[in-house]
Amino acid sequence: MRLATIRLEGRTAAARVENGLYYVLPYSDVRSVLESSGDWRKTAETDIGLVLDEHQVDLAPVVPNPEKIICVGLNYQDHAAETGQMIPEFPTLFAKYSRSLIGAFDELVLPDASDAVDWEIELGIVVGRQVRSATPEKSWDAIAGYTVVNDVSMRDWQVRTSQYLQGKTFESSTPIGPHLVSPDEIDHARDLEVRCDVDGDVVQKSSTSKLIFNPAEIVSYISQFITLVPGDVIATGTPGGIGAARNPARFLEAGQRLTSTIDGIGSLSNPCTRNIGQNRKV
Amino acid sequence: MRLATIRLEGRTAAARVENGLYYVLPYSDVRSVLESSGDWRKTAETDIGLVLDEHQVDLAPVVPNPEKIICVGLNYQDHAAETGQMIPEFPTLFAKYSRSLIGAFDELVLPDASDAVDWEIELGIVVGRQVRSATPEKSWDAIAGYTVVNDVSMRDWQVRTSQYLQGKTFESSTPIGPHLVSPDEIDHARDLEVRCDVDGDVVQKSSTSKLIFNPAEIVSYISQFITLVPGDVIATGTPGGIGAARNPARFLEAGQRLTSTIDGIGSLSNPCTRNIGQNRKV
Repeated sequence: MRLATIRLEGRTAAARVENGLYYVLPYSDVRSVLESSGDWRKTAETDIGLVLDEHQVDLAPVVPNPEKIICVGLNYQDHAAETGQMIPEFPTLFAKYSRSLIGAFDELVLPDASDAVDWEIELGIVVGRQVRSATPEKSWDAIAGYTVVNDVSMRDWQVRTSQYLQGKTFESSTPIGPHLVSPDEIDHARDLEVRCDVDGDVVQKSSTSKLIFNPAEIVSYISQFITLVPGDVIATGTPGGIGAARNPARFLEAGQRLTSTIDGIGSLSNPCTRNIGQNRKV
Repeated sequence: MRLATIRLEGRTAAARVENGLYYVLPYSDVRSVLESSGDWRKTAETDIGLVLDEHQVDLAPVVPNPEKIICVGLNYQDHAAETGQMIPEFPTLFAKYSRSLIGAFDELVLPDASDAVDWEIELGIVVGRQVRSATPEKSWDAIAGYTVVNDVSMRDWQVRTSQYLQGKTFESSTPIGPHLVSPDEIDHARDLEVRCDVDGDVVQKSSTSKLIFNPAEIVSYISQFITLVPGDVIATGTPGGIGAARNPARFLEAGQRLTSTIDGIGSLSNPCTRNIGQNRKV
């Protein structure tokens, strides 16, 4: 099953996606579907009778308002190597605020405050049920599905201090979507090609099979210190190929298009601009 | 003016606090008061006629559900020195999730997963109006008031990786309150004594006059990359005296009481326990 959050008449609505058609659900967004009592897959079977095709929909962030967004750093060996880090014993975790999120096809406005806006394609996990102190084995069941995230990073701000947050959570800078794809459709994302390109030039290409900590291990680890709840988003880390590690370094420029694809899940495609459309859409 | 969020009949309610009396307001919490249209001080003048005395109230986190909690590291010279850091050019920022918060007198349950639970008393800022790209001069007006935070830190988890988050956001580990105190009552917290004690033994003692980045500078800096909104909480950093920097290191133990005081604002007083009452109250 595939779910999306779409913008509709000045609000948002959840939709079930089948064969390029969006069946609007009586919920404001994907998180609300996941929070509904009972099995959310059953909830998502009952639409309101409004069906839109893919050319009519305006995609919001697949979860516009997660309680938590948790990002994993250094979770592919080649990315750890390119940034000079050891293979980690524990997941490196940092946060992002929901106000950072944008939709799958929204403009990515490069902020005036940064000259070093970089890409980081990542497999996103969306949590489907409350989970605390779970083993990795039990954690698979807490995953509602997977999505695509580009953890766009303002490198000049990220390295100002020891803590990444300020380079990772600029307003309206993180595309996420297009859909939540349930685990059964993609074998829990165990081996999907992950690819990022800038104007058609492939800059990152790897496979989710190369994750150091797999999705269930990450969910289990986080659940040791905090309760994960439906709608929580976990960005699982990026493979090698970031712009900052190139020689010379390479960053996003206005006029370029950033495309982020995970086979079996879908693509984000975000035109980069400067200084216009600064106001965040919901 | 002083505001609090209290637990009342299985829910929470905002209250105006005067002379030890709590005048219940028709809002679910302090954030809702700050979000109300018009001047929140006027909003807070109109109570529902229910008045409780301080012995009757059960204090929730002063803002139970901020959109964002942003923490500043290394914002006192002596703390920067005790952790071997230079005086920073930029504020070090990291996040905490709202699920970490507990009330001013709640039990602090030391998690089984950590042997190194440490104290960090901090001045807390509560944002009162939406602010983006503001100068420091303009940022004073965006501050609704101040409160007391203890950024209790699981040091063993904090130092597992380069990013502090996992040691800073354990469920139900961060006391905040007792009240939001408006800037006029305390001259914008420019020179208040900050004091933390464990069973009456003073472990931290400093003054907000020694902050490296003052409240308006911090608000201004954050507003360069993200919009701050009413109810957002900023913990401004801790002075010297943390347990991890002592020789030998000293951490919280079950049976102890952690008291966190800022003169003119108030005190948190949290008994430390292990393994009981793990479920978070709202």
